[in-house]
Amino acid sequence: MTTVRQPPDPESDPRVKAVFDDIRATRRTDFVNNLWRTLAFDPPLLESTWSEVKALMATPTQLDPLVKEMLYVAVSIANGCGYCVHSHTAAAKAKGMTDAQHAELLAIVSLAGRTNHLATGLQVPLDPAFDAGAR
Amino acid sequence: MTTVRQPPDPESDPRVKAVFDDIRATRRTDFVNNLWRTLAFDPPLLESTWSEVKALMATPTQLDPLVKEMLYVAVSIANGCGYCVHSHTAAAKAKGMTDAQHAELLAIVSLAGRTNHLATGLQVPLDPAFDAGAR
Amino acid sequence: MTTVRQPPDPESDPRVKAVFDDIRATRRTDFVNNLWRTLAFDPPLLESTWSEVKALMATPTQLDPLVKEMLYVAVSIANGCGYCVHSHTAAAKAKGMTDAQHAELLAIVSLAGRTNHLATGLQVPLDPAFDAGAR
Amino acid sequence: MTTVRQPPDPESDPRVKAVFDDIRATRRTDFVNNLWRTLAFDPPLLESTWSEVKALMATPTQLDPLVKEMLYVAVSIANGCGYCVHSHTAAAKAKGMTDAQHAELLAIVSLAGRTNHLATGLQVPLDPAFDAGAR
Amino acid sequence: MTTVRQPPDPESDPRVKAVFDDIRATRRTDFVNNLWRTLAFDPPLLESTWSEVKALMATPTQLDPLVKEMLYVAVSIANGCGYCVHSHTAAAKAKGMTDAQHAELLAIVSLAGRTNHLATGLQVPLDPAFDAGAR
Amino acid sequence: MTTVRQPPDPESDPRVKAVFDDIRATRRTDFVNNLWRTLAFDPPLLESTWSEVKALMATPTQLDPLVKEMLYVAVSIANGCGYCVHSHTAAAKAKGMTDAQHAELLAIVSLAGRTNHLATGLQVPLDPAFDAGAR
Repeated sequence: MTTVRQPPDPESDPRVKAVFDDIRATRRTDFVNNLWRTLAFDPPLLESTWSEVKALMATPTQLDPLVKEMLYVAVSIANGCGYCVHSHTAAAKAKGMTDAQHAELLAIVSLAGRTNHLATGLQVPLDPAFDAGAR
Repeated sequence: MTTVRQPPDPESDPRVKAVFDDIRATRRTDFVNNLWRTLAFDPPLLESTWSEVKALMATPTQLDPLVKEMLYVAVSIANGCGYCVHSHTAAAKAKGMTDAQHAELLAIVSLAGRTNHLATGLQVPLDPAFDAGAR
Repeated sequence: MTTVRQPPDPESDPRVKAVFDDIRATRRTDFVNNLWRTLAFDPPLLESTWSEVKALMATPTQLDPLVKEMLYVAVSIANGCGYCVHSHTAAAKAKGMTDAQHAELLAIVSLAGRTNHLATGLQVPLDPAFDAGAR
Repeated sequence: MTTVRQPPDPESDPRVKAVFDDIRATRRTDFVNNLWRTLAFDPPLLESTWSEVKALMATPTQLDPLVKEMLYVAVSIANGCGYCVHSHTAAAKAKGMTDAQHAELLAIVSLAGRTNHLATGLQVPLDPAFDAGAR
Repeated sequence: MTTVRQPPDPESDPRVKAVFDDIRATRRTDFVNNLWRTLAFDPPLLESTWSEVKALMATPTQLDPLVKEMLYVAVSIANGCGYCVHSHTAAAKAKGMTDAQHAELLAIVSLAGRTNHLATGLQVPLDPAFDAGAR
Repeated sequence: MTTVRQPPDPESDPRVKAVFDDIRATRRTDFVNNLWRTLAFDPPLLESTWSEVKALMATPTQLDPLVKEMLYVAVSIANGCGYCVHSHTAAAKAKGMTDAQHAELLAIVSLAGRTNHLATGLQVPLDPAFDAGAR
């Protein structure tokens, strides 16, 4: 149950078709997941979202592709976005994340959840040594 | 301004001194940051928190130490914990994170913030292909 | 699956019936959505919640009714409350929100998610020009 | 630095004076903290906020006053509201929270932060046994 | 639909069996809920999570067992973790939480959600009186 | 205290200068706030962030400019980003937001914070009537 009507035949709109074709070509799969199928209700929003995701996540950059997906999973967990946790975990597994690496990712994210709550509960003051300007 | 009184001479308590000594030995520095100095108000909480952080973050595991710190930064940003963002960014830099890697980390975290809000706003239904049980 | 038992015949309690009648009269519909049906487990909590929602959302105030619903949707997305995203999006559509306005609302909310994460990741210091006391 | 101008002489407005007098009488102190001094910029918002806080937090109810303050601290930590963490921790201490109870509160909140992130990261399905309707 | 494969016969692993046996003995029930069944995919993560939960939640400490569960529910609501809200609400009810206490818990958590947003929206400055170091 | 070193003379980099010039021209002011001065540490991140903010917030679109700023403030409050709350509140005031409108914005955001926590605490099931596909 989405908050917008998913267009029944999204690729009848040439702008949507162009994005879906690019998703399939970039990811080398016929599968276009529901986020994109739902965003198809507004072609400009679909285009701008995909172009940004493609530039950062599907293009070689400084960071390793698997590291990038793991960072995405970490943020999605902390933001409580179930769909995003599922889709980026699947992407990380497709890029080679093992069960042991997944377990360690979850262990770090949950440890950070713990110490984040501790630091906020204590209202710890910043150490001057953390000043980037002083490094 | 913390929510607990930082003990003025924390290392007069032998349990606190033992943890601080271990922090200094593990990290090879004399610097003990304010989170630990504040947690010193309750030695058992200090001990359990440090032992968990040490086991995961200061011990060789599957994931690269720098990757682990970047995951920690990512979660801390999404949780809005300023102290944690500062302390783990400093730790990541100490482990070799370049300015370009830092910029890319921020770009991914902020892109995830964007698509997390989109997926939540659309209430996108899960694709059956994301079912881990079916893989 | 709720965390409280929804009363099977909520309107047998006169306090619940009075609130439900007021909801129907205020909104000019027979439909009473599940939030209220669930809150019926505790009539005082039901009454205080409805009276506050009615005063702010179903009464003419300074802001346009559609703007108020869009603000409600925005907060609900950022708080990750799926039920609230659905119910207030439906309310906004009932008050005339077009698909294009909905798309723009989502674009702004997701852009804010992005720059919020950037500002938090950078720990940007406040500009003195933002001081309301100085204006 | 607030986002609204704190009125320089808030009690010259009789509606503000009435609320401040009630805060002082209810809490038996001359101290009116900054949340109320800032809300004084809009007397109706000040009145409605105080009347709700008074009814729940400064009036005998089912739950013990100290338990209520500790719940308030817990939510404020999870929501990342620094001002609220400070003000409700101070209130809990004024109501008798010991350092050991405070440490335990922080331990529980941070453990919950940890397992919340784990459950979200795993996307654990609900057990039918948790259905309140079936109890 | 979880993000990891739940082992079909988790107790064939002796480390998992030991934890499940301890959960059953500690809680005096045959029921092992899905969080633990899912964590069984990684025995070390299962062990460390259970040992921490047991030490704090299933062992007599300073705070009353029901108060501890209510604090856990409060944090889980603020963090938006649906599974955790359900499981800890069920645990609180098993420990004797009445419907009226549950209603009051929800009233406090939602009032805190309200004033947390107000304080953040106003960016209220800290009162020096809240300085724990000065008490 | 930022997590990156703010370049001391950012406009010596022509890419940064071009963005700053565009910010000044678009907003018709000499003031370039700290978010942009900090992002100057990485010109590509600065460019992509500004181009997106400009396209949505500084260009005529369907929604009224003041409404867009108020939505931005609402999301920033819910995400707990203090810098963003300040900067977008200042922007909304510059676009004509009155004190009464500001008070009403805060009232709605805080009411949403309240009912979001209620709906999450109750785990209210979705009403079929909210299904956008059925409308």
